[in-house]
Amino acid sequence: MSKGTVSRALNNYADISPATRARVAQAAVELGYAPLAHAQAIRTGRARALGLVLQMEQHDAQRPFLAEFLRGITRAASARNWTLTVATAESEEEGLETYERLIAERKADGFILPRTRWHDPRVALLRAAGCPFVLFGRTADAEAEGCAWYDIRGGAAMQDAVRRLQGFGHRRIGFIGAAPEFTYARKRREGLHAALLKAGLPTDDVLFDEGNATSEDGLAAATRLLAGKPAPTALVCATDTLAVGAVRALRMQGLKPGRDVSVIGYDGAPEGRAADPPLTTYAVDQTAAGARLADILIALIDGTDPESLRETAEATLRPGGTDGPAPQSKRT
Amino acid sequence: MSKGTVSRALNNYADISPATRARVAQAAVELGYAPLAHAQAIRTGRARALGLVLQMEQHDAQRPFLAEFLRGITRAASARNWTLTVATAESEEEGLETYERLIAERKADGFILPRTRWHDPRVALLRAAGCPFVLFGRTADAEAEGCAWYDIRGGAAMQDAVRRLQGFGHRRIGFIGAAPEFTYARKRREGLHAALLKAGLPTDDVLFDEGNATSEDGLAAATRLLAGKPAPTALVCATDTLAVGAVRALRMQGLKPGRDVSVIGYDGAPEGRAADPPLTTYAVDQTAAGARLADILIALIDGTDPESLRETAEATLRPGGTDGPAPQSKRT
Repeated sequence: MSKGTVSRALNNYADISPATRARVAQAAVELGYAPLAHAQAIRTGRARALGLVLQMEQHDAQRPFLAEFLRGITRAASARNWTLTVATAESEEEGLETYERLIAERKADGFILPRTRWHDPRVALLRAAGCPFVLFGRTADAEAEGCAWYDIRGGAAMQDAVRRLQGFGHRRIGFIGAAPEFTYARKRREGLHAALLKAGLPTDDVLFDEGNATSEDGLAAATRLLAGKPAPTALVCATDTLAVGAVRALRMQGLKPGRDVSVIGYDGAPEGRAADPPLTTYAVDQTAAGARLADILIALIDGTDPESLRETAEATLRPGGTDGPAPQSKRT
Repeated sequence: MSKGTVSRALNNYADISPATRARVAQAAVELGYAPLAHAQAIRTGRARALGLVLQMEQHDAQRPFLAEFLRGITRAASARNWTLTVATAESEEEGLETYERLIAERKADGFILPRTRWHDPRVALLRAAGCPFVLFGRTADAEAEGCAWYDIRGGAAMQDAVRRLQGFGHRRIGFIGAAPEFTYARKRREGLHAALLKAGLPTDDVLFDEGNATSEDGLAAATRLLAGKPAPTALVCATDTLAVGAVRALRMQGLKPGRDVSVIGYDGAPEGRAADPPLTTYAVDQTAAGARLADILIALIDGTDPESLRETAEATLRPGGTDGPAPQSKRT
């Protein structure tokens, strides 16, 4: 059979009989060649799959939102006929190996990187592999150069929390922060600190308690902060998980959240919404975030300039029952 | 070029010059044929990917465990060099379309079916497509014929709950059930009912309140059951979400969980563990379930007889503070 015949058969030319076409196709498969589903995939070798590696050893903060986040990604991906390949890793090292394996096996054409660190080793790895990626959050400026990202302005939410508490008459505001190697934790602390300075409110070191992750950490941090003299009358927390622990610390001391001490969280987690009273918090739309990240990543894979693929969104205040007028201002 | 030359070139025979091999490979790609990554994939056309379609309109019950479930699946899959393709669907109809799309595009070689219904339309669809699948849970016996499954014995946990409550002196036990079209809900109700009969305890219709999903449903159902005359002294709930609502109903009536009325849940959800007092519940190891489901599905795809791939596991009692001696027995 001539190369011309094989070519015409594989391209379904009408002058080749169906029987010949079938024989050629069968022979091609037997030789280890299989037709790919999409013309584009043929040209580019693409899997039409986005990759997401979830690192499980990290704190739970991402888990309550995982279903919403996946929903956003897969909805946007399937609208463009892409799919999502999910992997998990038990450690950062295993995570990096997982990216390498998925790239080598062409299981994903690019990656969404959740929970960015300020110095994030995934950036160098994916760059070296020439594999497209989008950051959920940011990294240090130098590392983020040439990167696409989607970021929720957590620092702006913290600034809004300070304005809100100042409006309630609070003067001494404490902060329960998360581990500062994560960009989100760093940005929320910076936002709060800047807002306190701008408002002329105290920024003593003793008002800042960082490196916390679990609700038990939040409880312990709130206990430490409330032991200060003078004690803060309001606590802003980097996550709802920490805030739920802080509310528990108040109750253990016989203090009423929203009356004796105000507590504000961040995330919009179900545990905060279900609490009694519901937590005042800044809620993030995780479905929208997942969808935009998928759209950005597909655009990036399609060759769009990464620096034009940078978006931010705001967290939105969801007032609950854990904040209110400062006790001092009621007394006057 | 002869068919023999093409074949020998594609198979990297040494008697074909590198230049010819490269020309043939390039021509094959141009014709729309591309080499697949794995020898096995070449023979079988496999993607070496497991598929999981999450239906989002359904109740939240699965979400608190999603991270653990994904962790189990992906750990087992990557140990065998497989990956996981995840999709979400907003409705049952969209879910079925999603299976069809993923099969047509060879994005998954088989599927894990979470949250089985007693009559589950996914079974017929996947059978008709000749696509392997494993049920998490079971279906009606006739439909399950020839199916592989992994099932947690929720009915047995309900029987254990009745024995436990009977040991505490409870005689009148109510049940807050979920939507009976889901197999898990049906099996838990049946297990409870059988245990009550066996123990010679009342099984009045008024003790059973089914079709519930959210914690608000659990609150309403507990309120109805506690209005019964005589009221039950214990409530067994098909899920922790319902049990958390039931505990809230108790508190609204000034009743103390574990002292005035006992409440037992099922799932081992974080919301129950974080509650005060922690919920007494039957906990399911979702990571182990995900891992076994992945192993079973890969064995099935590899040609193992589905009927030999059927496993059950037990939920394990996690005692909390919401159950205890019946109030009557304390009075005597």
